[in-house]
Amino acid sequence: MPAPRSPEIRDTYDERLNRILEAATSLIASEGYGNASMRAVARVAGVSLAGLYHYFDSKEKMLFLIQFRTFSSLLARLRENLHGVADPVEQLRVLVRTHVAHFAHDMAALNVCSHELDSLREDAYDEVFRVRHEYYDLARGIVDRILERHGGGRNFDGHIAVMSLFGTLNWLYRWYDPKQGRSVGTVANQITEQFLTGILGRAPAARPEPAAGG
Amino acid sequence: MPAPRSPEIRDTYDERLNRILEAATSLIASEGYGNASMRAVARVAGVSLAGLYHYFDSKEKMLFLIQFRTFSSLLARLRENLHGVADPVEQLRVLVRTHVAHFAHDMAALNVCSHELDSLREDAYDEVFRVRHEYYDLARGIVDRILERHGGGRNFDGHIAVMSLFGTLNWLYRWYDPKQGRSVGTVANQITEQFLTGILGRAPAARPEPAAGG
Repeated sequence: MPAPRSPEIRDTYDERLNRILEAATSLIASEGYGNASMRAVARVAGVSLAGLYHYFDSKEKMLFLIQFRTFSSLLARLRENLHGVADPVEQLRVLVRTHVAHFAHDMAALNVCSHELDSLREDAYDEVFRVRHEYYDLARGIVDRILERHGGGRNFDGHIAVMSLFGTLNWLYRWYDPKQGRSVGTVANQITEQFLTGILGRAPAARPEPAAGG
Repeated sequence: MPAPRSPEIRDTYDERLNRILEAATSLIASEGYGNASMRAVARVAGVSLAGLYHYFDSKEKMLFLIQFRTFSSLLARLRENLHGVADPVEQLRVLVRTHVAHFAHDMAALNVCSHELDSLREDAYDEVFRVRHEYYDLARGIVDRILERHGGGRNFDGHIAVMSLFGTLNWLYRWYDPKQGRSVGTVANQITEQFLTGILGRAPAARPEPAAGG
């Protein structure tokens, strides 16, 4: 455990930690967790191997931090964006746009989180799973409310509906490069309208106001 | 290159190869490609390490065979099932049901193909990519014909539509266990109806006849 720091020095510590985690995320996304050695992470992050072990006592702790921070920040951002939005159809629009925008800026993190959950063990797995499950519960609640209010008698299974949406969203890292052609808005809008139409059984009504954000 | 064999002995050779590839697929799915050593593959397949290298000259060749055979057989099965089906809406139903049924019997293969395409290099990557791309082209043609005939003026992007469907289908390995609760038919039907309704803008007409197969 590092000695207590003044806020000023703690900022620098956190900034360096973030820079190291970013470098590690890119390396794991391109090489795979098994192939990304701590020595290679230290090299791409521009720190010594001893310096790296100052931040995490193991490679698994590093992988845990990447996944835990990715999902915690996604969940926090989603809750912020949902603040004051009461209509479940509009909530679904916010969820898809938040997810696409969050990972459009960090496809490597989506790659690592999609591939490497099972590389975590015991407590680390449980803690990441818990955050992912909070995210699932939030999405599931929104989808269930849409099906309940608007499902029009279609007997859809909320679990299959949510997992089909998560598949669509988590597969983005395999094909979507926001620097090439399609904007975040274009991709998020089509995914949203396809999914909403799919579970509503008809095209959704026009949105009450333009969605905020990227 | 092994010496020529009589058909009878060749069967045994192929059977053993299949058994080894199945064992390797399970091991890579659970441990990751980086962690699955050839020694461990030999152990779970019940052959000697020298025996294993009789079938492939490298671990990468083994990974190539797993992925190439998985997608080649999926593509062949899909073409068989599409034989005589002219309506693109019905073709889409056949595609989803074929994909779900194919991998319901072999989720480990879906896991390996979803994760480890990038672990292949050069020719091996190109050859697997080519088969995957044939599969994409087939799906894209079906979706484009549906959008053209039934899209009702919605200006959907066929690429986003197909990739959102592939995301849904390829994510199945993370959550779907056909031995627990939901049948292949239940899952395939809901995915199909959600997707079709999503791109048609309305619930599709009832199918002309019950779909064949599992």
